Amino acid sequence: MYLETINSPSDLKKLNIKQLNSLAGEIRDALIKKMSIGGGHLASNLGIIEATIALHYVFESPKDKIIFDVSHQCYTHKILTGRKAGYIDPKFFDLIEGYTKPSESDHDIFRLGHTATSISLASGMAKARDLRGGNEKIIAVIGDGALSGGEAFEGLDYCGSEINGNFIVVFNDNQMSIPENHGGIYEGFKKLRDTEGKSNDNLFKVFGYDYIFVKDGNNIKDVVEALNRIKDNNHPIVVHICTVKGKGYRYSENNPEKTHFVRKFDVDTGEEVYQFNGERYDRIVRDYLLEKMKQDPLVVTMIASVPNALSFSKEYRLEAGRQFVDVGIAEEHAVTMLAGLAKGGCKPVFTTLSTFFQRTYDQISQDLCINETPATLIVVDASVYATNDITHVGIFDIPMLSNIPNLVYLAPTNKQEYLAMLDWSIEQKKHPVAIRAPRNGVFYAKYDVDTEYNEINKYMVIQQGEEVAIIALGDFFQLGEELSTKITEKYGYVPTIINPRFITGLDKELLTRIKDNHNIVITLEDGILDGGFGQKIASFYGDSNIKVLNYGLKKEFLDRYNVNAIMEENHLKPEMIIHDMNALN
Amino acid sequence: MYLETINSPSDLKKLNIKQLNSLAGEIRDALIKKMSIGGGHLASNLGIIEATIALHYVFESPKDKIIFDVSHQCYTHKILTGRKAGYIDPKFFDLIEGYTKPSESDHDIFRLGHTATSISLASGMAKARDLRGGNEKIIAVIGDGALSGGEAFEGLDYCGSEINGNFIVVFNDNQMSIPENHGGIYEGFKKLRDTEGKSNDNLFKVFGYDYIFVKDGNNIKDVVEALNRIKDNNHPIVVHICTVKGKGYRYSENNPEKTHFVRKFDVDTGEEVYQFNGERYDRIVRDYLLEKMKQDPLVVTMIASVPNALSFSKEYRLEAGRQFVDVGIAEEHAVTMLAGLAKGGCKPVFTTLSTFFQRTYDQISQDLCINETPATLIVVDASVYATNDITHVGIFDIPMLSNIPNLVYLAPTNKQEYLAMLDWSIEQKKHPVAIRAPRNGVFYAKYDVDTEYNEINKYMVIQQGEEVAIIALGDFFQLGEELSTKITEKYGYVPTIINPRFITGLDKELLTRIKDNHNIVITLEDGILDGGFGQKIASFYGDSNIKVLNYGLKKEFLDRYNVNAIMEENHLKPEMIIHDMNALN
Repeated sequence: MYLETINSPSDLKKLNIKQLNSLAGEIRDALIKKMSIGGGHLASNLGIIEATIALHYVFESPKDKIIFDVSHQCYTHKILTGRKAGYIDPKFFDLIEGYTKPSESDHDIFRLGHTATSISLASGMAKARDLRGGNEKIIAVIGDGALSGGEAFEGLDYCGSEINGNFIVVFNDNQMSIPENHGGIYEGFKKLRDTEGKSNDNLFKVFGYDYIFVKDGNNIKDVVEALNRIKDNNHPIVVHICTVKGKGYRYSENNPEKTHFVRKFDVDTGEEVYQFNGERYDRIVRDYLLEKMKQDPLVVTMIASVPNALSFSKEYRLEAGRQFVDVGIAEEHAVTMLAGLAKGGCKPVFTTLSTFFQRTYDQISQDLCINETPATLIVVDASVYATNDITHVGIFDIPMLSNIPNLVYLAPTNKQEYLAMLDWSIEQKKHPVAIRAPRNGVFYAKYDVDTEYNEINKYMVIQQGEEVAIIALGDFFQLGEELSTKITEKYGYVPTIINPRFITGLDKELLTRIKDNHNIVITLEDGILDGGFGQKIASFYGDSNIKVLNYGLKKEFLDRYNVNAIMEENHLKPEMIIHDMNALN
Repeated sequence: MYLETINSPSDLKKLNIKQLNSLAGEIRDALIKKMSIGGGHLASNLGIIEATIALHYVFESPKDKIIFDVSHQCYTHKILTGRKAGYIDPKFFDLIEGYTKPSESDHDIFRLGHTATSISLASGMAKARDLRGGNEKIIAVIGDGALSGGEAFEGLDYCGSEINGNFIVVFNDNQMSIPENHGGIYEGFKKLRDTEGKSNDNLFKVFGYDYIFVKDGNNIKDVVEALNRIKDNNHPIVVHICTVKGKGYRYSENNPEKTHFVRKFDVDTGEEVYQFNGERYDRIVRDYLLEKMKQDPLVVTMIASVPNALSFSKEYRLEAGRQFVDVGIAEEHAVTMLAGLAKGGCKPVFTTLSTFFQRTYDQISQDLCINETPATLIVVDASVYATNDITHVGIFDIPMLSNIPNLVYLAPTNKQEYLAMLDWSIEQKKHPVAIRAPRNGVFYAKYDVDTEYNEINKYMVIQQGEEVAIIALGDFFQLGEELSTKITEKYGYVPTIINPRFITGLDKELLTRIKDNHNIVITLEDGILDGGFGQKIASFYGDSNIKVLNYGLKKEFLDRYNVNAIMEENHLKPEMIIHDMNALN
């Protein structure tokens, strides 16, 4: 066992190539075993074991800087840089994170999780080195679909002419994004693979880079030789390595999309251990959209390389045919193309995660909202209940999106409402609409749900009461119901419950009317309070005697948190809210 | 005079090439004359007159769709499509806008003003056409620096493999951005020009496009022939036309950067008529940064192709040397590179317009704020007093930026404070900092300004008073002073004036303290109210008896507005605020 002997990259340098190959096998076994228990980015990491070993064999990290794009493929890097316990000892599985993290190790430079930034980050470090007069090598490792992100091209373009010293881009060409790749550059990469790097259609040369090709990026010896050849370069160079996503684990090699990210699975069959067979919004919406597309050839379902957001696995994509568009990792293009589709008479729906909509603020504002193009955005994983890695937390979209003029941002509270809003949005012709997919389970409406939402910012009174009005937004609606029940149990009276439905504006008529027989307004929202929904309500009542208590999350970057603890910290428990109410004078 | 006879593109088709050449001359004269009076994008439009005539000669707009990137070079297009009065008759100069606008004409498809979106917009229209079974041609016209924007690459990449029908990208290669170009692709374009399109380093072929080259894009006959040759293509093609920015007006050809956008100027000399010689923040900050860079080799001044934001014209850029970085039109890369520079030990400062920071929400959140990299952003033109074209209005940055955790967003109220904040920001090592450049003139401090801002969210009481507390943010501070004076004149008592300085948080200790002897808190901010600063104050006081009145702008896309009228509409006048105060019960 060589893995036992490796506590830092310097230990690696004591081994010969044969020993390194053995080490790679040990790491592969460890990664498969670990992920079969704790989940993670399986296929991406299996593909880059050998190249990572080669990088640490040739370069002198942490003096030399290796920046992994997205950093979802850094597991081998972590194993080699003092953190192997996180991959071989179940006790430590949760202590070492899935992305790079400087506080874990000097070998990690940035916290990353979004694509296509590594070249730009590296360019800053290279420029800083040159101004400081340093001599460290700067290496960006990018691939696995990330090259189609606009920022990667911006970075390639800038560095191609403006960085003069050592600057190495390792392009990990595994022929995949999360699903298959889309885009013109991939044909060029195929030509480069077919000609062993000799094709004239060379993206990198066009951008001003020197270039070398490594046919087998899973061969440590070949990658080491290539890196040794160019490591002292004093100008930008791309090292194009061809790797196999899921390498060495047959189930993953055969199912690279399905095993891009996995949960606990059976190593023998590759099947996930827990199959969820209950209702899920991703599948409900997928089935709705499939049916809708069959009925109407102008409905278009668009994703940006994250089919999982709607459970749109390959068979469903094929079923949708040309009405399904995957633009690749290119969210800005996606939103702008959406504006073009809508203007061209289509009824387009683009779905991605709340955290990835952060890439598209400008396109939503300019192309959708200034132009008032009737397109639909489905914002998933926008909730304290969703992904909890710091780079992927989905609690910031309300301030980001809801303050853009002309956007109608809707917050459904149950299945019927979600589908009614979606159908209305697809068919209407006046507004860009975003829908915040609930994330706290599939609830059913206990009241008649509207089928159209043309009266913008019209809230719905679900329970007419007195004293206290609870305005419960989106998937905190059920929390509002719970609070109401607790208040009635405790004090006898029935509070009013309002489902605002619209995040983007105030129902001033209703808000004025409830002044008559209410003293307290409570707002609940599943996102940060700053810049959000409740603060607008507080501002509205600023000139009145109504007391307003806003509940939501504190403005902070949450990271790998316990939902219950966060809810408590933010007083998002009925008893705590009642306590705050009683503290009012 | 042929111009008299042209009321739509069909009139154009009655002319022969010689007559079209005469028409181009007439349009050139009209544009120079019009812009010498009313200003506009001079050099960009002079360069593309012939190509625009050729486009409308060959294609059938509005059936065929011509989408101009940024649309700042659409003047000839407007002249040819029924709007020539806006360019030849001073009475109508202000009626026709500088960018495309569908409500002006069916020949305009989108309202645009930001770069690099045309290919993506066109892709949506092409996909919609294909789903509808239409046969219109789709043409995107891009150039003048816009190709370095990441979204342009995303669009090129997507269409290169995913669009199967007619799809034409006209690349207007004028060898310029606003200043000179930066980036690796420009060397490739030079090779294409030098080889008349035969070089192997062909960006467009690499992206999967067919390609033709037109050596003289200012020759109508050549462009017409080229377009005729490829207009019925059924696959994506790039028509690379080489044009001269400022063509036909010597002063502009010799000074393409200076004449990219002009104000009223003397046609004989090219000099602007009104020279402003008073103090301006762009020059003050430029001089400060130049001096700072001389003292400290690690200070880096970065722009993204908008040197005007800091009056960094060529001679100053040369003076700054390698500590000055222009990344080209690539704002996302800029912010991420900034994170790399800061992590690498530099002290980087990136300046652009509020409206262009919209491109960088994700990079500010992920690369700067999650990583807490000590970098400085200067946000200019963030004000009701700044640019007033709908696509460039700067009143949305407070909700966009101030709700991102870890960012310190500062609002200076006078010259000493602005420079003190900037200097503190550059030297500190803990926070990403943004500074909102005042836009209401250069004021001088009437009190001692702090030299450090380490105590985050510490507001400053400028005048201790009673009854009413005026919290006046950034360049509405002077409005707050005016309001205070009016209140004292009218009612005898002295209100409290607070300069909050920090947009990103609350000074809860101070806000609690002023409850003791104040009944009303008034907030003033130069931006939209929704999601902004004042609503946080209202939420803070939601549980108290303090009345809060928030003043700022309504959430809407303002467009070519009169500042005074907008201020009145939003009650941003001392008398109106006093009236609102009196209406409180």
